[in-house]
Amino acid sequence: MAKKLKKAPRPKAVLPRGLRDSFGQEVIIRNQMLSRIADVYHRYGFDPLETPALEYVEALGKFLPDVDRPMGGVFGFQDDDESWVALRYDMTAPLARVAAQYRNELPSPYRRYAMGPVWRNEKPGPGRYRQFWQCDADTVGTSTVAADAEICAMLADALQAAGIAPGDFAIRINNRKVLNGVLETTGLLSGDGDDDEATASRRGIALRAIDKLDRLGEGGVRALLGEGRLDESGDFTKGALLGAEQIDIIMGFVSAEREDGAKTCARLRELIGTSEQGAEGVNELEEIAMLLEAQNYRAPVAKIDPSVVRGLAYYTGPVYEAELTFEIVDEKGEKRQFGSVAGGGRYDDLVMRFTGQRTPATGVSIGVDRLLAALESRNVGASETVDGPVVILALERDQMAHYQSLCADLRKAGVRAEVYMGGGTNMGKQLKYADKRASPLAVIIGGDERERGVVQIKDLKLGAELAAEIESNEEWKAQPAQQEIQQDQVVHSILDRLARTQS
Amino acid sequence: MAKKLKKAPRPKAVLPRGLRDSFGQEVIIRNQMLSRIADVYHRYGFDPLETPALEYVEALGKFLPDVDRPMGGVFGFQDDDESWVALRYDMTAPLARVAAQYRNELPSPYRRYAMGPVWRNEKPGPGRYRQFWQCDADTVGTSTVAADAEICAMLADALQAAGIAPGDFAIRINNRKVLNGVLETTGLLSGDGDDDEATASRRGIALRAIDKLDRLGEGGVRALLGEGRLDESGDFTKGALLGAEQIDIIMGFVSAEREDGAKTCARLRELIGTSEQGAEGVNELEEIAMLLEAQNYRAPVAKIDPSVVRGLAYYTGPVYEAELTFEIVDEKGEKRQFGSVAGGGRYDDLVMRFTGQRTPATGVSIGVDRLLAALESRNVGASETVDGPVVILALERDQMAHYQSLCADLRKAGVRAEVYMGGGTNMGKQLKYADKRASPLAVIIGGDERERGVVQIKDLKLGAELAAEIESNEEWKAQPAQQEIQQDQVVHSILDRLARTQS
Repeated sequence: MAKKLKKAPRPKAVLPRGLRDSFGQEVIIRNQMLSRIADVYHRYGFDPLETPALEYVEALGKFLPDVDRPMGGVFGFQDDDESWVALRYDMTAPLARVAAQYRNELPSPYRRYAMGPVWRNEKPGPGRYRQFWQCDADTVGTSTVAADAEICAMLADALQAAGIAPGDFAIRINNRKVLNGVLETTGLLSGDGDDDEATASRRGIALRAIDKLDRLGEGGVRALLGEGRLDESGDFTKGALLGAEQIDIIMGFVSAEREDGAKTCARLRELIGTSEQGAEGVNELEEIAMLLEAQNYRAPVAKIDPSVVRGLAYYTGPVYEAELTFEIVDEKGEKRQFGSVAGGGRYDDLVMRFTGQRTPATGVSIGVDRLLAALESRNVGASETVDGPVVILALERDQMAHYQSLCADLRKAGVRAEVYMGGGTNMGKQLKYADKRASPLAVIIGGDERERGVVQIKDLKLGAELAAEIESNEEWKAQPAQQEIQQDQVVHSILDRLARTQS
Repeated sequence: MAKKLKKAPRPKAVLPRGLRDSFGQEVIIRNQMLSRIADVYHRYGFDPLETPALEYVEALGKFLPDVDRPMGGVFGFQDDDESWVALRYDMTAPLARVAAQYRNELPSPYRRYAMGPVWRNEKPGPGRYRQFWQCDADTVGTSTVAADAEICAMLADALQAAGIAPGDFAIRINNRKVLNGVLETTGLLSGDGDDDEATASRRGIALRAIDKLDRLGEGGVRALLGEGRLDESGDFTKGALLGAEQIDIIMGFVSAEREDGAKTCARLRELIGTSEQGAEGVNELEEIAMLLEAQNYRAPVAKIDPSVVRGLAYYTGPVYEAELTFEIVDEKGEKRQFGSVAGGGRYDDLVMRFTGQRTPATGVSIGVDRLLAALESRNVGASETVDGPVVILALERDQMAHYQSLCADLRKAGVRAEVYMGGGTNMGKQLKYADKRASPLAVIIGGDERERGVVQIKDLKLGAELAAEIESNEEWKAQPAQQEIQQDQVVHSILDRLARTQS
């Protein structure tokens, strides 16, 4: 076999671009965070659902924002039976399929959560991967905005469970119907939803412009609502061709937030004019605010914010976003707000794609990597640094059974422990390995120790701290971080030391 | 938008064949089991590793058993840059890639575990899916069989942590080198590994035959080692064309197990004749048995069993398998042993594919679905039935804020709870929903209760039990499972009731 392998050129040990590996600590911290969020979802009565990574392409539908290619944005291939299959690009499309497929068996309303990777066939970039994790919760089968309010409350609880302090985030809530009302007054949307293509295209431009308010500022958005905008790189983006008065109405909308929800809603009523849809939207916002208030969620934790739009086309009512309000220093060295880590809204038409019947639904998706990055920037989880194992050095080849037996005793006592299994009996090399493993303690049993029935316990953490402080060689040799103990005391002594170093 | 959707034919709400969805309880029980196994792996000093689902096809290599097609057995597609990418079919191939890619950064030896789905492009069948979970642990970078012994000990601990009783499983250990020694004495393998194709093909037939001993019995294996075998469906499988004496040697090998490891090893020494490789293999088996003994793993929990072969071609030394020894009734109504739930071994050549340098490695893969099925058949996990939420009925539309506020109080007290959010105010429909949710308690606040400042708590579990016992309508109407309490006592009273029903 070895000979055959030599003939073929060696494959490169690399990942396809836009993908990455996650090691040790990183995986543990993410799983802990997801487990805390799952506890919140569970307490709210949501059940887990795990769909497979693969779906029929037509079941997924084309709902990725800004993607016009065939198979746009997804990884797909043709199955043996000629059907096209693709990796899911989010958790919402598979949920819509499940809600349709099992509609006679599932409880209604159906509350479910889902955590797992999704895949996007997009150009990778810094911090932009082609596989990433999402953590969703949705309620399918109810049109009451109490369900939307509940998702917002749950999102606030989930962020706190993950480790974000109450003052560090805001759940911002808006309603597409209000926005539609405003668009009606500007002529970008007709009341009966029957627009020509040109108007629909201009409306798309306007929506994307509003969504970029954070990045482009008021001037940039105004330009995109009007003739268009020349960006820094010299590229020109065509605008929505609105007049000054219409632009004022839209800008009035995105800056309609007032001191409290009631005043914001009053301002919105002025802006929507006579639009019925707009009025319905404002009523819904008022009800959501009232329901959240009843559960003690109020500003700054949760608030009505008309500048929230959300990119996806399929939202039909309330939309919401979790924004982290603390400042970070970005790649360019500039201070800015951390920004959005989760978003969602009501999508009453997605399940209808399969069944022909309207099935109201609402839900949120947390960007797991964004939230982890936020926690890291706030130093949350740093206290959860996973300790490496206690390493028992293997200094005499023929004593492996003895080391293993001691190691088994430690593990039975609940201690994370391992015997060094690399080659050779060099103590320095083995201690280096223990350092690389972030090992708190090394257990040293040489021939001399074995004969005397003792073991040396070396405190590697303390050793490293002392090494940083001690300057003279004499002090170093005193080795205060190393202790000799009787062999029958070793488990007890290690438990004791670990309890002290970890407290 | 609704109009456009009507034009396109509706997609079917189905999954591609061979795939399935997992709901609620199923997901929770699996995650609990995996979390317990991860605790064991962690205690043994193994770190988690998460590689992405996609790898370059050439990085995966062709190591699936019995697959000769191009892209054989995997789901793959061509990326934008023309390279071929595929979904991983196991966790070992990505580990080999990681061990090569990060060989300068990772500690050596590198102990890692990995849990997640893998994908096989195979014909689906009953209980045979194209996406399923694996749970692996491997040690890369050490040639000592102490690493193999450690994996076997850890596997025993992991199975116990998952809920398999010590008397219900056996870790069976063999060594490919012993088998190779036996094959040398039969002429199916030359001492220098330089065989012609015909011999290699006959050797493959013999290996697959031995691996089928459980299913075919001694007669069937003997036939396959000789001229060939006609199966029940009338298909003829060509044999390895060995003579009677050679067949006796091989059958002697697979039935070489004796009362204890020492006697088994003595018998193996007779069978391998003068083969150096065979002698090395027996020595390794003796050392593994000694190391396991030192950690108190001995028969029946762990034992040398020469009938273990393992299907994969890449194993180079010790191989091991976890077998569940209790009986189940199979699909045909016949009693049989549950069989294998995990297997692994030493594969010293896999990393070399990338680096050209031999990197010894050994590890095990647990078949997660097989193990879950085993636990189910032993009724383990049944006690972990996840309770549905307390359901607060929504009997008056304008009282939603009140229900939500009560619900928030319950959740803050740690109770899993939800407000009914389906349409309408029909109590019967809402109680039916609560039943479907496996709800332990329903909270009923009608207009009358609200005015009197009380709530009704209905014990749905007790109600169901009573309904099964009670025959006359009068008794039923007495409703002992329903209790009226003061509104300010509701959280306390529900906590109290849940503690009683769950104990």
